[in-house]
Amino acid sequence: MQFLGEINFSFPLLATNTTEPADGSMVVAAVLLSLVVVYLASKVGGEISNRVGLPPVLGELVGGVFVGISVMHLLVFPGGGADSSTSLIITFLQTTAGLSPEAAPQVFAAQSEVITVLSELGVIILLFEIGLESNLKDLMAVGIQATVVAIVGVVVPFTAGTVGLMTLFGVGAVPAIFAGAALTATSIGITSKVLSELGKLNSKEGQIILGAAVIDDVLGIIVLAVVASLAKDGVVDVGKVIYLIISATAFLLGAIVLGNVFNKSFVAIADNLKTRGELIIPAFIFAFVMAYLAAVIQLEAILGAFAAGLVLEETDKRIELQKQVIPIADMLVPIFFVTVGAKTDLGVLNPAIPSNREGLIMAIFLITVAIIGKVITGLSVFGQPQINRLAIGVGMIPRGEVGLVFAGVGAASGVLSKPLGAAIIMMVILTTFLAPPLLRFVFPESDTLATESEQLIKD
Amino acid sequence: MQFLGEINFSFPLLATNTTEPADGSMVVAAVLLSLVVVYLASKVGGEISNRVGLPPVLGELVGGVFVGISVMHLLVFPGGGADSSTSLIITFLQTTAGLSPEAAPQVFAAQSEVITVLSELGVIILLFEIGLESNLKDLMAVGIQATVVAIVGVVVPFTAGTVGLMTLFGVGAVPAIFAGAALTATSIGITSKVLSELGKLNSKEGQIILGAAVIDDVLGIIVLAVVASLAKDGVVDVGKVIYLIISATAFLLGAIVLGNVFNKSFVAIADNLKTRGELIIPAFIFAFVMAYLAAVIQLEAILGAFAAGLVLEETDKRIELQKQVIPIADMLVPIFFVTVGAKTDLGVLNPAIPSNREGLIMAIFLITVAIIGKVITGLSVFGQPQINRLAIGVGMIPRGEVGLVFAGVGAASGVLSKPLGAAIIMMVILTTFLAPPLLRFVFPESDTLATESEQLIKD
Repeated sequence: MQFLGEINFSFPLLATNTTEPADGSMVVAAVLLSLVVVYLASKVGGEISNRVGLPPVLGELVGGVFVGISVMHLLVFPGGGADSSTSLIITFLQTTAGLSPEAAPQVFAAQSEVITVLSELGVIILLFEIGLESNLKDLMAVGIQATVVAIVGVVVPFTAGTVGLMTLFGVGAVPAIFAGAALTATSIGITSKVLSELGKLNSKEGQIILGAAVIDDVLGIIVLAVVASLAKDGVVDVGKVIYLIISATAFLLGAIVLGNVFNKSFVAIADNLKTRGELIIPAFIFAFVMAYLAAVIQLEAILGAFAAGLVLEETDKRIELQKQVIPIADMLVPIFFVTVGAKTDLGVLNPAIPSNREGLIMAIFLITVAIIGKVITGLSVFGQPQINRLAIGVGMIPRGEVGLVFAGVGAASGVLSKPLGAAIIMMVILTTFLAPPLLRFVFPESDTLATESEQLIKD
Repeated sequence: MQFLGEINFSFPLLATNTTEPADGSMVVAAVLLSLVVVYLASKVGGEISNRVGLPPVLGELVGGVFVGISVMHLLVFPGGGADSSTSLIITFLQTTAGLSPEAAPQVFAAQSEVITVLSELGVIILLFEIGLESNLKDLMAVGIQATVVAIVGVVVPFTAGTVGLMTLFGVGAVPAIFAGAALTATSIGITSKVLSELGKLNSKEGQIILGAAVIDDVLGIIVLAVVASLAKDGVVDVGKVIYLIISATAFLLGAIVLGNVFNKSFVAIADNLKTRGELIIPAFIFAFVMAYLAAVIQLEAILGAFAAGLVLEETDKRIELQKQVIPIADMLVPIFFVTVGAKTDLGVLNPAIPSNREGLIMAIFLITVAIIGKVITGLSVFGQPQINRLAIGVGMIPRGEVGLVFAGVGAASGVLSKPLGAAIIMMVILTTFLAPPLLRFVFPESDTLATESEQLIKD
């Protein structure tokens, strides 16, 4: 007979995985705790941000920073010096749930993997929802303006950044080109979320920004391919660049053409299904297949989800589908923004650390180029006398996760010096966090009463 | 200059995880493909099942078997002889997305981990939804009947199974007790889903079955603790059993008492939030905290989610919350049922394999005891002359994931012989797959027009 102190036998929560039941239980417990932390951070941050008149998504990002690697260490991820012993959630599990120190690294790795994938599903659902709220014809109507905005928004920051780093800071050509390339990206996730929150997604400015951000994503992938092959062998992989251009064009055109055919089949399928999920499940099958195809041809998965949303927006099921996607987006999208915040290490901004100082000076230069370089793209919009050019430029500012891709690839290839790498990350952080409040201020308040989504919920 | 054939540079999909960008991308691609497979299996299976007049969930389980380890090998999980080379999804990724053979095992492990956690989130959401559709007062009104049904449903199969195995098959006392214990469980997930699909969740029979299944889950955990300590040292860990009884009782009572207090705070919080997800996010925070607490005190996470649903059902927000949970459940719940099916290895049923034959004979005995032992529990319902006693007994038949826990713990402890272990798994498979059609037939057809959920969607 034993006593209460020795209760350490771990039960599986579900244990369909019979090989390692104890671990499975702990991973689920860790994921549940992580989600509670994510949701608390997103709601507290989002509500405060909303009350002071800023877009909620900024609060979600800041909430993420608060619970993440920079402050509270509740939600941390492998890499960047974090391991299971620095995760407060893992420590909490060891204290409350009898997680053994030996099993902790494995549970930490699995929990991080699951939350990362959930956050990526979140941004996929976000772009699917944005696609459902956008209109292909409206987007095509501003297609030329959006293309010009995208191209100017790539050329100007790239040239200014690369030349400036080489002349003012004496940086070598290849790292300067890399940093310049990182300045070209636009985070479609951040921008589209803020536009949606401001109720501006379907304004002409919103459509140009969204279209330009999509084109920018495609251009960004091509630019990345060029600089990555430059960084690897010092030569440009022309075959790859041609492949990317062809496949990206084929994907986007194919999605539109196929969309017109698939429209009717989708409605017919949904009308014929009689069991629960008759609308949302076929929609997700389509969205996830498109996301997969986009990823396979080396575009981003989110572009596939966006294209799927655009196609389904053309169907009679649009309104019903939008209504059903809203709670799913409400559940999954905050995981993305809080995770982006949680992974942001504000340590690179600390001037007390000597090695940060050189980076800080370069960062000030990069941030200036990043903001001015995108703001002036608004001036390139032609044939639209009434348009808010400043808003378009500001909408293109956030670099978000796309900018981090450049920093990541650059760091992995060893091309970037540590200060320059840190400067790029600082630029990404600042543009990402500045864009939501800036966008809020350049769009006049009068007509930002409610977003379409909120109206839908209330219908 | 290189050419098209050499395009194998992997881009990160999001690459906020800058340390291993290529892997992250492949894991997301693998998860997207897995979800497409899950949704196709659930919809094709569910629709066919529905058309032939059976509960859709049976079709989802069978669809899962079809895509899983037994047939197609699209969705397989580590353990039971499966590895990355047997997963068709991983093979497909190697062919289409340039996944390298070296990285395949890691991507396979991560994908399996993510899908397993998603399926567990699915059953947590399912029980939360079932809680939201149930009424605490109705449950309490049949509390005594449910308790009697649960206790009879534990004692009868346990005694008949243990004694039968010892006398008829000459099995030793400890393994016989283990197998007898596996006969006591009831899968609340399968049963509640079928009841919901038949529109019978709020019938008196449905409430008794649900209440008994909840109590059964608690009894099952206690029985498991007893047999697991028996299997380990041959003695019963009385301290642990007392701890489990106290903590389970405290949890369930605490949830009800606290629920009455928390009710009003929840409504006040939801009314004060102004950003998206103002209802669903606080509800999920509550549900996930309760699920975590239930898991920590060694109950099942799903019981915590069920209790959270019951508490929130008492609030004014019930209808709105139910509406918002439906699409989320539609997205996540099929992952659970398809995964259960996919992990089911029908190989143990193959009589061509000699080692299966001894197991098959024991399985026939166990299945007979499993069905008769639960069906006669319906007879123990007293004071309800009009009630469908057969339906109550049949509702308790499916062993589902709880039965697999016993098989898993038994296999891990080395107590069970291979034939007896296989026989337990066969009993779990057969009772799980037989219960939905049986339940369909014992409930009269006339009043099964639409479930509450379908009515809600159509409102």
